[in-house]
Amino acid sequence: MKKNKDPIYVTQPLLPNFDDLKPEIQEIFENKWVTNQGQKHNLLEKKLEKALKVQNVSVFNNGTIALLTSLKALNLPIGSEIITTPFTFAATPHCISWNNLNPVFCDIEYNTMTIDADKIEQLITPNTSAILPVHVYGFPCDVKKIDKIAKKHDLKVIYDGAHAFSTEINGKGIGTFGDITMFSFHATKLYTTIEGGCLAYNNPELKNRIYNLRNFGIKNEEEVVDIGINGKMNEIQASIGLLNLDLYKNEQKKRMKIKNAYVEQLRDVEDIRIPSIPKNTTDSGQYFPIVIEDSFGINRDKIYDNLKEYNFFARKYFYPICSDYTPYKNLKSSSINNLPVANDLKNKVLCLPYYGDLDHKTIVQICDIIKSFS
Amino acid sequence: MKKNKDPIYVTQPLLPNFDDLKPEIQEIFENKWVTNQGQKHNLLEKKLEKALKVQNVSVFNNGTIALLTSLKALNLPIGSEIITTPFTFAATPHCISWNNLNPVFCDIEYNTMTIDADKIEQLITPNTSAILPVHVYGFPCDVKKIDKIAKKHDLKVIYDGAHAFSTEINGKGIGTFGDITMFSFHATKLYTTIEGGCLAYNNPELKNRIYNLRNFGIKNEEEVVDIGINGKMNEIQASIGLLNLDLYKNEQKKRMKIKNAYVEQLRDVEDIRIPSIPKNTTDSGQYFPIVIEDSFGINRDKIYDNLKEYNFFARKYFYPICSDYTPYKNLKSSSINNLPVANDLKNKVLCLPYYGDLDHKTIVQICDIIKSFS
Repeated sequence: MKKNKDPIYVTQPLLPNFDDLKPEIQEIFENKWVTNQGQKHNLLEKKLEKALKVQNVSVFNNGTIALLTSLKALNLPIGSEIITTPFTFAATPHCISWNNLNPVFCDIEYNTMTIDADKIEQLITPNTSAILPVHVYGFPCDVKKIDKIAKKHDLKVIYDGAHAFSTEINGKGIGTFGDITMFSFHATKLYTTIEGGCLAYNNPELKNRIYNLRNFGIKNEEEVVDIGINGKMNEIQASIGLLNLDLYKNEQKKRMKIKNAYVEQLRDVEDIRIPSIPKNTTDSGQYFPIVIEDSFGINRDKIYDNLKEYNFFARKYFYPICSDYTPYKNLKSSSINNLPVANDLKNKVLCLPYYGDLDHKTIVQICDIIKSFS
Repeated sequence: MKKNKDPIYVTQPLLPNFDDLKPEIQEIFENKWVTNQGQKHNLLEKKLEKALKVQNVSVFNNGTIALLTSLKALNLPIGSEIITTPFTFAATPHCISWNNLNPVFCDIEYNTMTIDADKIEQLITPNTSAILPVHVYGFPCDVKKIDKIAKKHDLKVIYDGAHAFSTEINGKGIGTFGDITMFSFHATKLYTTIEGGCLAYNNPELKNRIYNLRNFGIKNEEEVVDIGINGKMNEIQASIGLLNLDLYKNEQKKRMKIKNAYVEQLRDVEDIRIPSIPKNTTDSGQYFPIVIEDSFGINRDKIYDNLKEYNFFARKYFYPICSDYTPYKNLKSSSINNLPVANDLKNKVLCLPYYGDLDHKTIVQICDIIKSFS
């Protein structure tokens, strides 16, 4: 097989047609209302509430600032412990730590790679204030079990749904579970505003609090009632978001075809596991991870290297895991004994190139390289 | 005098010509590199270093996230005290508090309305870790005195230069003073990227630290070395910033003419004071504040209300002051005894409409309304 002419990356941003965006930006420039909760910003919030099937949406300049804000909104005591997963992007534990809360890592399930709900309770101490599970790759956590634990121990639940835009469980928007769910609209995400994100939540009383925390605590011209920062999404981001609301479903459809093509190619390969989304759950189409078991011909890193030689850039996602990072590696909960599954899977999982415009030939080539080692 | 047909606000965003911006965005969309320290982002940093006459610039998604990050970059101990001014926008104390540091308010000078350097030392305790003065309205703080105090007591100095883009003292960029200076590029600022900001600093060792803090602590594909968040400026913001670098000087020139017109109209009005920028200092042209003394015919609020009736929207900036805000009003340093000048000026200062396209007729009308009460 010849090296692919152009590099194929794990994803490509889904952007609106520039001709559709032009009049939107022109309008923003003419009105000179370019940020600070403008018309497009407010319209986007309304439309996202529908798209995500949630009660309330507050949009942000990015998902990390949204997550950082969610932790403040729930009044978690400084220094308290937040149980989370190490099998996530760095932003998850960083938002906890930046706010001077303490992340406590819990191991993950072998199948969905989300937090193992059966291992949460043993990590709860009198100092625990919240659980921060992640719907990783868009695979939903065990929301029922987590809800039960949270109620029993009076803990808040914040879901990191960065990968889970539009995922539903039994027809319910995934943002309706827990106290708050964060979605990311980063360029690498299915649905994007280039940078951006939002918080979704049921409790209408959180609306004002989050509004204030996102905009300097300003209640009105003469009252500042809370310690807020600047998490505002500007009007250009919002206009991209409005246009992309018309595009992401088609992208999802195209990705489902690509997923089927990958599955077709790989399902009979021994010791390559394709994690499957639980029943009654819709697939966000965010990533296509495979698991290369030890018994396979070569290990994940060698597959990754081989693909790279042909100009196919898969992603070791997640490797390393958060409990390996310099700021966290010495935490008690970062011990390998506490996180056997996460430490096993970090060496086995590989996210393959996955976006609507990926052509069938490329999929076959990628799978042929993998299969050549079986 | 008849009510003005259209409302005149205190400022208008300075935006590039949309025809100049179009090809820039088109290029970004074609390359599909829309964020994550792209080409335009990196070029903007280089060009800002020249424009601001500083050694290092790191751009951010907004000035608040930049300031929040600067406080982490200097490793200030949690719970330590930061001496700052109450005569500033809410973001200044909020960044301190969000990071679980404690703001301590110091009174201001009557003339420049910046922190009164002679009152800083009496507020220093063993728990003080830094001083956070603000170059308010672009008026520079007494950087020499502040530097001396900081050296004597081994304190860090972070300047909030949100209003001071391009200000120079004796030909030196204002961002060269202190450890770090934050500039804001919000839509209301002379120089804007719609939302945006930067940190400027001399110490090259801070470069990596700030880079990491701004981008999730990611050192490379396999190492996360610090607790970082997402402070990234995207490529569209950066392209607006690049175009505006060619525009802000002309806007400044136009504002200087407007300032002269205001001064011409108001300088002989008894008990209206026009604060003047110190010698050997360039004027950023950010705001045009006037001070209405008690002995003037009517008070500031009535002037504000009268202007409003004619559709002229001045701004009581700053009223209230940060020490009046709900989260801070009970601090020991918020007592009126500690802040007599700030509490006096908050009732007297008024920022008049001030932007390049403001026409002479409007200036005369605004001044006529004010003068009618003298």
